[in-house]
Amino acid sequence: MTGEQFLLLPGPTPLPDRVARAMSQPMINHRGPEFKQILLACTEGIKKVYRTKQNVIIFPASGTGALEAAVVNFISPGDKVLSVSIGVFGERFAQIAGEFGAQVEKISFEWGTPADPQMVKDKIKADVNKEIKAVLVTQNETSTGVFNDIKAIREAIGDHPALLMVDAVSGLAAVDLCMDEWKLDVVVSGSQKAFMIPPGLSFLAFNDRALKVHEKCSNPRYYWDAGNALKYLEKGQNPYTPAITLYYALHEALQMMMEEGLDNILQRHMDYRDMVRAAVRAMNLQPLAVDAAASPALTSVIAPEEIGANKIRKYLQDEFNIVLAGGQQKLDNVIFRIGHLGYIRELDLLSVLAALEIALLKFGHHLELGAGVNQAQQFLMKKHS
Amino acid sequence: MTGEQFLLLPGPTPLPDRVARAMSQPMINHRGPEFKQILLACTEGIKKVYRTKQNVIIFPASGTGALEAAVVNFISPGDKVLSVSIGVFGERFAQIAGEFGAQVEKISFEWGTPADPQMVKDKIKADVNKEIKAVLVTQNETSTGVFNDIKAIREAIGDHPALLMVDAVSGLAAVDLCMDEWKLDVVVSGSQKAFMIPPGLSFLAFNDRALKVHEKCSNPRYYWDAGNALKYLEKGQNPYTPAITLYYALHEALQMMMEEGLDNILQRHMDYRDMVRAAVRAMNLQPLAVDAAASPALTSVIAPEEIGANKIRKYLQDEFNIVLAGGQQKLDNVIFRIGHLGYIRELDLLSVLAALEIALLKFGHHLELGAGVNQAQQFLMKKHS
Repeated sequence: MTGEQFLLLPGPTPLPDRVARAMSQPMINHRGPEFKQILLACTEGIKKVYRTKQNVIIFPASGTGALEAAVVNFISPGDKVLSVSIGVFGERFAQIAGEFGAQVEKISFEWGTPADPQMVKDKIKADVNKEIKAVLVTQNETSTGVFNDIKAIREAIGDHPALLMVDAVSGLAAVDLCMDEWKLDVVVSGSQKAFMIPPGLSFLAFNDRALKVHEKCSNPRYYWDAGNALKYLEKGQNPYTPAITLYYALHEALQMMMEEGLDNILQRHMDYRDMVRAAVRAMNLQPLAVDAAASPALTSVIAPEEIGANKIRKYLQDEFNIVLAGGQQKLDNVIFRIGHLGYIRELDLLSVLAALEIALLKFGHHLELGAGVNQAQQFLMKKHS
Repeated sequence: MTGEQFLLLPGPTPLPDRVARAMSQPMINHRGPEFKQILLACTEGIKKVYRTKQNVIIFPASGTGALEAAVVNFISPGDKVLSVSIGVFGERFAQIAGEFGAQVEKISFEWGTPADPQMVKDKIKADVNKEIKAVLVTQNETSTGVFNDIKAIREAIGDHPALLMVDAVSGLAAVDLCMDEWKLDVVVSGSQKAFMIPPGLSFLAFNDRALKVHEKCSNPRYYWDAGNALKYLEKGQNPYTPAITLYYALHEALQMMMEEGLDNILQRHMDYRDMVRAAVRAMNLQPLAVDAAASPALTSVIAPEEIGANKIRKYLQDEFNIVLAGGQQKLDNVIFRIGHLGYIRELDLLSVLAALEIALLKFGHHLELGAGVNQAQQFLMKKHS
């Protein structure tokens, strides 16, 4: 019997029972006192995860929606922006900015590596007329399993007036981020990742410096208007109907996150990363990402060339009901991605690693059965000693 | 004991148990075969409700989002558009078009009355150079409880090339609409109304004539891009992560709607309207909307001036856990609105009408206790004879 699915994607991630049950609460008036309480509690809870006291808006939308919101609220047509791209989602952020009239200058890094803050520093230094209005960067690149050193990139910008806009959709609460301490201007995130709730909500956080830019920003907007949303938030409302059941889920998930503690959550994600990387190496496989920038949210694994990643994924899905993500674009069939963010148990990872060994052996890859699992067991033994 | 809330808003509307339970299903891969099946089934189901064989896109967004999608996909900056407004949501549609660069000419009608198709005809006739690119109109105006005769407005436009764009967010499946037969070009709707599911999904339907306009439309867009969404739909996917739990809800709700039958659903909404209007009149109150254009989705009732609508609403909420909507903008405290769309039972309406009588008597309004309920009972007796 295969039973329940093992969903190890870098989003959507599995739902805790508490979250699933919270969503079955009845509908309420989105302009009434019950919703007001939930909205304000969720907004405060999200601020804790962002480690910020700045503004947070919750949109009824996917993460991509909040990326668009970041662009139309803080970038005007004609603005020069510097895009720092290390994969598919860095490209997406740049593409949205371009679509809304920005002049995008792109620095791209090899897929599987992080951005070099020195290159950002050089570009910023060269901009003596302060023409660059914003720097766009991905915190955790879901397509490769690499995270960027956001703090170092912020430092590279120094006192240049460009806004630093961070796509933290898949990274927030899996990779540490200190919005206020690091002086990040705009940070976007989404619900279906480490927040452990279904897709359909996204978050836009921005400081007062960004708010001043917003007030003069000439891009057209209605649905994504952050200023209007702030006005309604003061009344405990949204400008238009919010996705109520997803707020129920968020409210419960934030409660769970506070019970576990943000530092423990971050440590858990790092532990999972280390455990999975040790295990796949013992299976004679290589992770795509370099160690220093390996994502705590997911691990991209280079499949044996003679097998291909997609055959392994298909076998795991058909035989064991395990869902892993494939590679995107030029990484299609080259890598498979093991998501270990959000509501994933140690034991889930153990069994998935064990099944992966079976798949690899079946397709003729050279490994010793149990070698990867052994690494993971040793890791867990230390942790639980 | 007041117990469960009686939520009689014109959205969000109460959830059927089947829908609430459907949402507790586990997360799945939004690019996998299970989601593909749900997405395609939902898209086909929505087409049946729209009575169309044209294109339908489902956005992870509120209804307002799909209004913005209609504007940025089919109206270019500088385009002249004719806005037909009979209340708050007519104003909103016009405002979004204006924000995205349209030159909006507005015909407004007194709140509580429908649009006069003859006035549309006159404007269209006067446009000898065919400068008007689109006509914007609300099918069911939630702020007043009035519906427009969309078929007559379509006929008023005749063979003028302007696209007819209909906001059917609160009306679809409560007020009849035949997208193909009536030759409507763009029709927007939302999930938290007659579709009986939570807010967070909205629908954009458009015909091939509109698609041709889309292809040349110069408004910037990414999240709302209908052409890109169509491409992904061919693969059974969305361009970005969809709101999966709301699709579970939609899938179940569409099943319920097909079981009841669209014609029966429409008749149910008309019956509720007639029953509520007869009852409030017997309470010596007047509905805001004229009979000929009274909405099957909700009834706006003019409160006795010396009491005010909000005192009645507060009493019903505090004493009986009944939630009615108030008036918006200039109708605040003037009217209250009884929503009777979506998953509302006859018996819910009976008890709400009975409680309303108690509230009115308490505040000194002249009526005979039971007079309104009696009208509703007589209505139900005939229906169940």
